[in-house]
Formats: sequence, C-alpha cells, structure tokens
Amino acid sequence: MPLSSADIRRAVLAQEGEVSALFDELRAGSLDPIGPGVTRDTFGAGEQFGYRVIEARATALGLERRYDHAANLFMTMPGRDRSRPRIMMGSHLDSVGNGGNFDGAAGVVAGLVATKALQSLGMAPACDVTTMAIRAEESVWFEVSYIGSRAAFGVLPDGALEARRRDTGRTLAEHMAECGADVEAVRRRAASLAAGDIAAWVEVHIEQAPQLVEAGLPVAIGTGVPGNFRYPEIVIRGEWAHVGLPRRFRHDAVLAASDFALGLDEIWKATDAARRPMAFTIGRFFTDAQEHALTKVPGQLTLSLDVRAYDKGHLADLEAQVLVLVKTIEAKRGVTFDLGKRASADVAPSDPKLMQALTDAASTVGVKSMPLASPASHDTATFTVAGVPSCMLFVRNQNGSHNPYEAMEIADFLDTASVLAQWLFDAVRD
Amino acid sequence: MPLSSADIRRAVLAQEGEVSALFDELRAGSLDPIGPGVTRDTFGAGEQFGYRVIEARATALGLERRYDHAANLFMTMPGRDRSRPRIMMGSHLDSVGNGGNFDGAAGVVAGLVATKALQSLGMAPACDVTTMAIRAEESVWFEVSYIGSRAAFGVLPDGALEARRRDTGRTLAEHMAECGADVEAVRRRAASLAAGDIAAWVEVHIEQAPQLVEAGLPVAIGTGVPGNFRYPEIVIRGEWAHVGLPRRFRHDAVLAASDFALGLDEIWKATDAARRPMAFTIGRFFTDAQEHALTKVPGQLTLSLDVRAYDKGHLADLEAQVLVLVKTIEAKRGVTFDLGKRASADVAPSDPKLMQALTDAASTVGVKSMPLASPASHDTATFTVAGVPSCMLFVRNQNGSHNPYEAMEIADFLDTASVLAQWLFDAVRD
Repeated sequence: MPLSSADIRRAVLAQEGEVSALFDELRAGSLDPIGPGVTRDTFGAGEQFGYRVIEARATALGLERRYDHAANLFMTMPGRDRSRPRIMMGSHLDSVGNGGNFDGAAGVVAGLVATKALQSLGMAPACDVTTMAIRAEESVWFEVSYIGSRAAFGVLPDGALEARRRDTGRTLAEHMAECGADVEAVRRRAASLAAGDIAAWVEVHIEQAPQLVEAGLPVAIGTGVPGNFRYPEIVIRGEWAHVGLPRRFRHDAVLAASDFALGLDEIWKATDAARRPMAFTIGRFFTDAQEHALTKVPGQLTLSLDVRAYDKGHLADLEAQVLVLVKTIEAKRGVTFDLGKRASADVAPSDPKLMQALTDAASTVGVKSMPLASPASHDTATFTVAGVPSCMLFVRNQNGSHNPYEAMEIADFLDTASVLAQWLFDAVRD
Repeated sequence: MPLSSADIRRAVLAQEGEVSALFDELRAGSLDPIGPGVTRDTFGAGEQFGYRVIEARATALGLERRYDHAANLFMTMPGRDRSRPRIMMGSHLDSVGNGGNFDGAAGVVAGLVATKALQSLGMAPACDVTTMAIRAEESVWFEVSYIGSRAAFGVLPDGALEARRRDTGRTLAEHMAECGADVEAVRRRAASLAAGDIAAWVEVHIEQAPQLVEAGLPVAIGTGVPGNFRYPEIVIRGEWAHVGLPRRFRHDAVLAASDFALGLDEIWKATDAARRPMAFTIGRFFTDAQEHALTKVPGQLTLSLDVRAYDKGHLADLEAQVLVLVKTIEAKRGVTFDLGKRASADVAPSDPKLMQALTDAASTVGVKSMPLASPASHDTATFTVAGVPSCMLFVRNQNGSHNPYEAMEIADFLDTASVLAQWLFDAVRD
C-alpha cells in the first residue's frame, strides 16, 4: 500500500515529545550567564555545545556525520544512488547574545525530523538527504555575514579570518581553530559544497516578525532573502562646544544624526506606501562615552546603518537616496559624515519551482501557508547566490527573534516540519 | 596729584609679561596626558596644581591667604576699615577634561591683576579687596553645580557629598578630604561667606561663544546667568527587535530619540525667532554598548537634557513644551520615556547698579563694551541667589570654551582687567 500524506503527517507528529526534549536540552545548556535568554556564541562555547547535542541526535538516528574544514556539520541519510545531487536542509546553530532558543536551531532540528520521518516510514531515498548545521550565521559577533555557509562554498571574503569578535577581541581564525576548523583550508578557500552536487536547499527558520501571527497561519514560504548594503561605522563630526553656545554657532552631531535617522524613516514610509518591501536599521547610535557630557554640545556621533531590499535596482536607488540625505545634512548642520567601510550582500530570490513544490506540499499535507517576504538575512542567500535552487520555510513566532522571548509553538514547528517532510518525500521518491 | 584712568590703564598693561607667564605656568603644569588641552580636574591633581600656582602668586603680591572648609582660597588686600563689606572678585580654577587654559583661571588672574594695580598705584582701599579661587565649578566631574561657591555659602544640596566623580567613581567627600577640605563642616553646611559681608561680586570669564568676535568688541557686561532645568539621564524604552521586523511593528528607541532632539530644535528655532534667549543641549545620546548591534532594532537609548533661559516663567513654559513633546513621541512610536532625576537652578540676573558701574568704568578707561546674555552657568549665580550684588565681565574668545582651542587674546584680557581695575578703584576710593 503506498504511503499517504496522513502517514507522513503522523510520522512527524509522533516526534513531538523528543523534539520538545531536544529543544529543552539545547536551551538548558546554553542559557546566558546573566540574561534570561540563550547565548550560543559563534565559534565559542555556546555554539560548540549546540554541535555536541545535535551530533548526538544524528548519531542516535544512525546518520553519517562529517565536519568540513570550517567545522560545519553534515548529517546524511544515504540515498540509493549516492552520486546523484543531494537534497539539503538545515540552518545555523549559533545565536546572538542573550537571544532565543529557536533562531537557527529550529532549522537544523526540522531537517532531522523530516529525515527521521523518512526512516520511520521505511523510505529509501533516491539520493542522499543531508541536514547541515551551519556555523557562525549571526553577524553580531564578527560583523561578517554567513561565515559558515560561505566558507563551505569557498567564498568567504578577504580579511574575514582577521575579523575580531566584538566581545573577546580575538580573530575569527583563532576562534575557528579552537573549534576544530582547518583554518589554512579556509584561507585558501577550499570548498565542501558545490552547487552542481545539490538538487535543492530548504531552510526552516522562525519568522522574525509577527506577520504570520497577524495572518493567523502557522507557516510561510519565503519569496527570497533581501540584499543589503551596510555602513557599520559612520562617524558624524560636528564641533564640540560649550553649553553656552547660541544656536546659530552650533554644529551639533546629535541633531545631524537625528536628521539622518528621521530622513531614513521618511524614505521607508514612502517606500512602504508604494508597497516595495525594504528595511533600514540604525542599530548603534552613540556619542562617545569618554567625551560626551551633560554640558557639552556633542561634536561627534557614531552610528551603524543596514539597508535591505529585494531588488538590485531598488537597493541602488535607496543607496543613492541615502547619499543625497548625507549631503543635505552636511550642508544644513555644518558637519561631515565619514561613511567608513561599506559592505553589501546580493539579493537572493527563492527558486520559483521549489517555492511551488513547497506550496503544493503544504496543501497536500493539509497545512495552511502563505508566501512571505521576510527582510532578514539567512544562509539561504549563500546557496542561492552559488546557484542552488533554494527556498525558506518560516514558522509562526510571536515575539520576534534575537531576544529571549521568542515564542515559537511546537505545534507550528511540527506543521512546518510536516510541510518539509512531505516535500522531501515527494522529492526523493524516484 | 589725583590718579587718572590713564594711570590705572598703565598699571594693568604693565603686567602683560607676568600675566602671560602666569597663564603659561598654569598651562604647562596641567596639560592633559593624552589630548592637546588642559585638565584641571575638580578636587583632583589638576585643580590642586592650579591652587599651588595661584597661591604662590598671591604670596608674591603680599596678600592674605586663607582656605575655607571647602578648600576655596581667599586672597585679600586689607582695607582701611576691615569691618566694612568687602569687594570680591574671582572665578573657578578647575577645567573640564582636555579643556582650555582660560575657562575659570582667567577670572582669578583678573582679580589679582586688578589688586596689583591698586598696590602699584599706592592705593589704600576703603574696604577689604578679596579675590576668590573657587573649587569645582565644572559639573562634568560630579554632575553637581557650583560645588565650591555653594559650599562657601553653606547651601550645597543634600546628597552632593555622595556624588561620584565620573572618571574615578569615588565620592565628592573623598575627593574633598584629599584636597584638605573639612568634610564634616561642609556636611553641616558651615558658611565662609555671608551676603551681608559682601558689597559686590564681579567674575571675569572668557565668553563661551563668538558673539564678541562677531561684534568686534573685547569685553561684554553680563546681563545675568540663566536658570536651567536638567534631566541628566532620560531613558527611552522601545522594543529590541530583529532587523527583519517590518516598520509597522517597530518601537525604535533611536527614532524616538531623534524625534525628541529635533522637536527641541524646533522649539529653540521658534524661541530664537521670537528673540527670547534660551539654549538646550543633549550632551549624551547613546544606545547601550553591551546591547546594541548592527542588526538589532534598538530597544533603548539614554540621553541627557539641559535647558536654560533668563526668565522663570519662560523656563516653566519650556519645560511644559518638553513634557508635551515627550507625550507626543510616546504615543507616536509606542515607547516610554523614563525622565529620571530632575535638577534645576534659579535665574540669576545681574545687579542693575553694578552693571551700570562696570559699563561706566569701561567707558572711563576707554575700552569698548556691550551688554551680553551668555547662556552658560557660572558661580556668579550662587552669589546672586544669595543676595550679593553681582555681575560678570566676558572676554572676547574665538573658539568657544571646554575645548583645547580656546583663543583668548592677552590684549583682550588686559582690556577686561582694565575695566575691572577702574571699577574697583572707583568702588574702594572712599
């Protein structure tokens, strides 16, 4: 008797207890020493703990386990024809400091759940089915994007190994070596992944906004990962002055920075009104603690800028608007903007056929879904840019991510894993 | 033959060499270890150095020297009738960190120059003539205003002795004790000055704005010291969130803070247009260094606010406008403002007769002057509030104060000291 979608659904739902226990184990071992959240620091003790837990789970499932030169972990259920391009799933295992338990880890666990569903249904997949636990996705630590996935494809940018972790001050190379990576292989851009060997990549991730909560749906099919441009350290220089200085003589860096923030907010408001998705974030915004004082007109302010959108032309247009804004404020306030280093990431649209296949799988397995443009960055962008047909599944989540109060329901996670398992089943049947 | 204004002028100008040498000595001994400026830290090594130099100068002039319970120094030329209310001049000796050489010290030196002019003209003053070197005027160190002058009048506010210096973290009581103050006397509010014993107080100070440069005049007669209200630590709380959060879900503390800064700027612009002098300064403005990141929507920002004006009703009106602005932004951005502690200082208008006497003295001695509302705070406010007829003389100064690039010309200083000496001569003749 052929397997039905109800069998697949049951094979996923049957894992509820062990999935909850696995998430609890991950949380318990990576609680932040101070905050209420979870800290799985990139190439540090927290991330290492995550790898031990996940590898033990893969061992229990009887999967092949392999670490690459960048210490990424591949957990594979062998296919009938091992030479065929493989199916890949997964996400990252690190977290921001004092963040949540699910941002990253949920995608790795989902891959293992779908794989176990195949196993429990007695399915021998046509090709290898690999879940990848990716290193170092959270760019707060080294301020380098997609370290693990880009190292796997051999496309880590120049200088990345010399980036210093913001808390320890030590280099990525040092941190990688401590976690068992082959730093010299990373340096010469060895690759453990090649696009031609991968039939598809699907990353499950919690949604970082409450759009699914708003829509009342458990899962969304990602339309793509936005591209971005970033200026991590813009310095506005005005003139330090005495509190007694009249307005017409001031070159106040705080007022110039405020003009900048609100100018960007106006750009976003207009772009929203035109229904073109984008986001800008000024994450850091500060006068110098050594220099500023209650009675000094601030002469300098430092800020970071991240701008993201789903279309290359739109990004270029937004950057042009930012540069015009800078010139306008320089003239108005008599200040200068030192933009500092610029970084960027390409727009990574989802593969249309894969999006359709995931949408169909949701409908087959009886889970309601919607398409979603989520403005966050994900390793999936690395796969897309490398030429792998890629897509993401987002799980409903109440309180955003990168904070201790992420609130993904296990029921929603299992709905999403059911969609993944149904798609996987269809993809590896023949 | 009676003394003429030309004699007084000559007696001041004759001191040019020694005045330059005295300023050079002060600068050389209090250079900041890092910056190009001067650091005479409040109740610390830099201020102590200033006292040694000034006391040595008073000794050379044969003046009586006395330190009070707060370690303020009084340098007195005895009068014919020592029971008469005295004439007082002076300013403070401390500076901000990496500040200039003249903010404060110029007023102490001016008092000694005017006193020496009397001596060199063989004048026996009718009453005591005292130059006071005041402690701890710069509120950047302990964030308490007018420590030295208020301690002298026995009106230091509750809790001041427990305030901690921002760099050392130690209390004002500890720092004062190290500099020879009698902390217990300060605590029980002993007074070394009483308004009834002081006929007049005149403080010479460099102008902190380039209004005299604009006007092309060397000296100004102060119309008064503004009152202020201060909120040293306002905390805006929004919601930390992931960079992927769409605009409509954000409660961005940076945008709320920018609304606040620009809202205040609009208030100031309108007030300037109405020709009512005021100033606001947001000196500190920062996201938390432990929490903020390139890819986090900022959930918190801390700022300081100082607002000053020359009229009690105007100050009250400005504060009401600030509170309305806060409510508006809270509603607009879904954030909360925790205003924290509030501090304030009364408006201190100059004594009209003393202003006129100084204006007349300038004209007698042939120095061009103008009246000036300077929005800075000065110890003179303490004398005014205590009931002493008080006024300030401002010296032209190119580059503002509280920075290493103060540019007071010695010629302008001597013009100002000439005005002071002429006024003093007229005041103590009979």
